[in-house]
Amino acid sequence: MSEQAAWPLDDRGAAYGDGLFETILVRGGRPLLWDEHLARLARGCHVLGIPMPAEHDLAAPLAEAGPGLEVLKLTLTRGSGGRGYRPPAAPEPRLRWQLADFAPAESRWQTGVRVRHCRLRLASQPLLAGIKHLNRLENVLARAEWNDDAIAEGLLRDDAGRLVEATAMNLFWQRAGRLETPHLARCGVAGTLREALISRLDIHEVEAGDEALTNAEAVWLGNSVQGVWPVVCLDDAAGVERRRWSLGVTHRTFQAEAHALLGYPCP
Amino acid sequence: MSEQAAWPLDDRGAAYGDGLFETILVRGGRPLLWDEHLARLARGCHVLGIPMPAEHDLAAPLAEAGPGLEVLKLTLTRGSGGRGYRPPAAPEPRLRWQLADFAPAESRWQTGVRVRHCRLRLASQPLLAGIKHLNRLENVLARAEWNDDAIAEGLLRDDAGRLVEATAMNLFWQRAGRLETPHLARCGVAGTLREALISRLDIHEVEAGDEALTNAEAVWLGNSVQGVWPVVCLDDAAGVERRRWSLGVTHRTFQAEAHALLGYPCP
Repeated sequence: MSEQAAWPLDDRGAAYGDGLFETILVRGGRPLLWDEHLARLARGCHVLGIPMPAEHDLAAPLAEAGPGLEVLKLTLTRGSGGRGYRPPAAPEPRLRWQLADFAPAESRWQTGVRVRHCRLRLASQPLLAGIKHLNRLENVLARAEWNDDAIAEGLLRDDAGRLVEATAMNLFWQRAGRLETPHLARCGVAGTLREALISRLDIHEVEAGDEALTNAEAVWLGNSVQGVWPVVCLDDAAGVERRRWSLGVTHRTFQAEAHALLGYPCP
Repeated sequence: MSEQAAWPLDDRGAAYGDGLFETILVRGGRPLLWDEHLARLARGCHVLGIPMPAEHDLAAPLAEAGPGLEVLKLTLTRGSGGRGYRPPAAPEPRLRWQLADFAPAESRWQTGVRVRHCRLRLASQPLLAGIKHLNRLENVLARAEWNDDAIAEGLLRDDAGRLVEATAMNLFWQRAGRLETPHLARCGVAGTLREALISRLDIHEVEAGDEALTNAEAVWLGNSVQGVWPVVCLDDAAGVERRRWSLGVTHRTFQAEAHALLGYPCP
């Protein structure tokens, strides 16, 4: 694992979560979905009012990458300065990176995963929806709701009970032959794999509650690092099983589209 | 200014805002409202599942304090470890502190302040309401809404238009002779000065919209570092003046109660 110097004590990222991050799959030094990662980071910079770094600065850590599969984590903060919450007039953003060897959870591609509903409801903050900012306490608290390693992920709903995402992955399903994923206008992170799939497939962004999953022919979780996991079992927040799915060709077709973008095999 | 070593790159505070902070007024090495700060930190630790440090560790930086007025900032994170958002089973919290000379904005005690409504609406997240966690992007974005130094603070409402707080201070008013402050069950930070005043005065925690201020005889902002600022002018989010107040004995009485707790004079 290579990484850089630490965060100064007065960095606004450490003080207020005043920054953004991207977690990028790297194969043989080549970043996957790089354009989507740059686009999301730029969107976050625009929302927060942080100057977007030059692409060559963001790509510089790739020179340290080895021949295998790695994950590059880029963290960009507003830097130091300002007075309390007040941001400095001319922020000097601070960029740090970590590069680590990576192996995806291949067995989850093959056999699918069991997931559960989380009790925590995501708060609605349209200003911050979609971007990958550093205020992630909701994700941390949701992920702390279970310890059973047989549960791969937890599904998150908003305060009105609408499905949003999983703690670290986006959510997709097929209902009546139609591919759908939650609309992320109020909360949630718009994953780069989700963006890439929406631009390539006929995926509808919808507002939907639990009934969407109850009625779904197939459900998947996915992100740009792990690829796509078919969901084979859904528990409620009390751990009671609510629905099972058998893996079929529908599951594999969607997975193949996603994995082609990441250089992963079709299970 | 004395301070400690930096944050490691893998610290969860820097990565996710997975931690808490306290900002404490210190006079001649003696912390003000210390019990209230400890109580809020303990409440935050309980909510986030972070072990509460021993009081002597939290108080250790006070040994570095000089004879004058200073502000001690304590930041406590869940430390390193865990896997992604998943917290480590046995977190080893990391405590850092900064101690800086301080002078309160005395002229604001005397002449009062002009404030404005912010456009940003605070998201409702009951799980995190009241505690002083490190996910403060809403405060940063709200504080970035204005640059005019004549505006001392911005008032924040929730998504239903209920008054909550100011970006870095709590809000109080008197209406029909009754002291009131917003209920903080859904969002906002329960300031230590607010806690101390509620336990000493007959202050009612209420749900109220803008009409509470329109009808108020007096309005104040306060926190444990700056003391209490009477509000003499309120602008809306477009900068249009909505209401003015003349300073009177009501303002000074409340201010005197608060300033007695902080060792500040009664203006």
